[in-house]
Amino acid sequence: MAGFRIAVAGATGAVGTEMLRVLEKRKFPVREFVALASRRSVGKRLPFAGGEVEVAELSKDSFEGVDLALFSAGASRSMEFAPAAAAAGALVVDNSSAFRMDEGVPLVVPEINPEAIASHKGIIANPNCSTIVMAVAVWPLHRAAGLKRLVAATYQAVSGTGAAAIDELAEQTRAVQCGKAYPPKVYPYPIAFNLLPHIGDFAERAYTTEELKMLYETRKIFGAPELRVSCTTVRVPVFRAHSEALNCEFERALTPDEARRVLAEAPGVEVVDDPKSNRYPMPLDATGRDEVLVGRIRQDSSVEHGLDLWVSGDQILKGAALNAVQIAEIALGKV
Amino acid sequence: MAGFRIAVAGATGAVGTEMLRVLEKRKFPVREFVALASRRSVGKRLPFAGGEVEVAELSKDSFEGVDLALFSAGASRSMEFAPAAAAAGALVVDNSSAFRMDEGVPLVVPEINPEAIASHKGIIANPNCSTIVMAVAVWPLHRAAGLKRLVAATYQAVSGTGAAAIDELAEQTRAVQCGKAYPPKVYPYPIAFNLLPHIGDFAERAYTTEELKMLYETRKIFGAPELRVSCTTVRVPVFRAHSEALNCEFERALTPDEARRVLAEAPGVEVVDDPKSNRYPMPLDATGRDEVLVGRIRQDSSVEHGLDLWVSGDQILKGAALNAVQIAEIALGKV
Repeated sequence: MAGFRIAVAGATGAVGTEMLRVLEKRKFPVREFVALASRRSVGKRLPFAGGEVEVAELSKDSFEGVDLALFSAGASRSMEFAPAAAAAGALVVDNSSAFRMDEGVPLVVPEINPEAIASHKGIIANPNCSTIVMAVAVWPLHRAAGLKRLVAATYQAVSGTGAAAIDELAEQTRAVQCGKAYPPKVYPYPIAFNLLPHIGDFAERAYTTEELKMLYETRKIFGAPELRVSCTTVRVPVFRAHSEALNCEFERALTPDEARRVLAEAPGVEVVDDPKSNRYPMPLDATGRDEVLVGRIRQDSSVEHGLDLWVSGDQILKGAALNAVQIAEIALGKV
Repeated sequence: MAGFRIAVAGATGAVGTEMLRVLEKRKFPVREFVALASRRSVGKRLPFAGGEVEVAELSKDSFEGVDLALFSAGASRSMEFAPAAAAAGALVVDNSSAFRMDEGVPLVVPEINPEAIASHKGIIANPNCSTIVMAVAVWPLHRAAGLKRLVAATYQAVSGTGAAAIDELAEQTRAVQCGKAYPPKVYPYPIAFNLLPHIGDFAERAYTTEELKMLYETRKIFGAPELRVSCTTVRVPVFRAHSEALNCEFERALTPDEARRVLAEAPGVEVVDDPKSNRYPMPLDATGRDEVLVGRIRQDSSVEHGLDLWVSGDQILKGAALNAVQIAEIALGKV
């Protein structure tokens, strides 16, 4: 029988369930599907291809005969189980941060560096979701005019944290509106009608790990070790799709019209930029879309060769599940 | 009887009602209070100083014997009525954009340029709310190290739009959660669980008027006509207090510790910056506070002498009503 035996580790999570939908939607040739998760989800049934698959427990023995293992179960699970999957002969596409900065592991956005896929040794890393949304929008401009420096402020949806955070925003919002208490569980403070300038953990120079991922991962994906990036990452009370205000400084001149032309031809990007008709990217419009929406393109005259952009992208799709499946398509030669 | 005869034009609005509370809280010497609004609010009663005042219609004849007229009724009403108020001998403190960039009109943040007040010819302008929140935080650092360039991304609360926008966020959020439709009225698109990168009108170089205010007003307030500022202003589903990610480039070196020391001594600022204890500014904490909260102070190594900041400030208080009353206190010699 044709097709691949595919495992998803973390199949019940926000990204895992989307991986199933993406595989189905893109008609990925699946011979058999293995849904893996932690013990508490064992026996749960997930819809797939008109039928259902039953969740089995993720273990080192889960990967016999598996061709492709998509991991989205957190960095510690990836550290523990991804090498076993690769050793069993599966190609691992890992959505966690576990291996992204490892020298032997390609970190890939197919629109940017698909050639890196060929050098894998069993594991390919999927970048951070905010990084992908930014990189897809900025890469075509970098190719056109040479990106020197990027200042980013993010507006990140709660689904980036996972399914429990989606519930927390919904329930807490209801509670606030009824005048009831809803103590935060997932986040350190209320997210309903609030903003949290804190994503990941605090790390070097008081930047968060999320902010540093946008620096280091972008350098690796672009093959631009000198690229300068500074970020402030902020959680906002939005369910889905990350947005970002990007201030870009280029080596060479690039007008907004040129930028729009370059972006209009770029894969994975949709230009939504017609202020006169109130057309600009918004997370509600980016939700469920494969493309990263790019707009509010302006010449920033506060610096030589500066451009301001505003982008919104579905971080569960292009920022995670879709990007991982795209990598697998290329790696397994199914494109 | 001691004290001033004070009129508030736009007394029923989000800022107007806060002006009444600020006057009362700061024990501003009020002999008589005149609440003015458009015809549809005439007869409405507003609480003030333990009693009530009845709203009268704003007209050119409203200002006889008035010492101080606080305007917060929109730019067109200010254009129409503020000159009449000044001609009648009232000191006008105008919260609209009508006169801010006029050469003969001081544009004042009392913590920054109180000396400009003395040159007024009857009208003093209160800056834009996002501008004030940014300026209060950045001014002490500018004095210490010479600000060259500022890249700002804002996260602005709906109360900046006014009372109807507060209702829209509340009602639309309820509707979304019940699966009901709630067509936007105040904003062009839904604001519940969404972001709108569109504040004010689209103007020169596709920047919005709000984004340009942050450039031109800051230059005027700082007395720094060469200051370079680029902004992206975004409406977020938060009820009150504006937040801003600020990337600053200075003439001279300024470490995060030095910045914290400078800001700790600055009037109108509270440093909230202890990542290890998860302490950082949030709009819920800034709501109802007179101070602008400043935190997430980081050395931005992507540029020489760079600092990243994150600020939250109550834009109805310090961004509007409080700043206007502070101006009046100085102008009328009551401080």
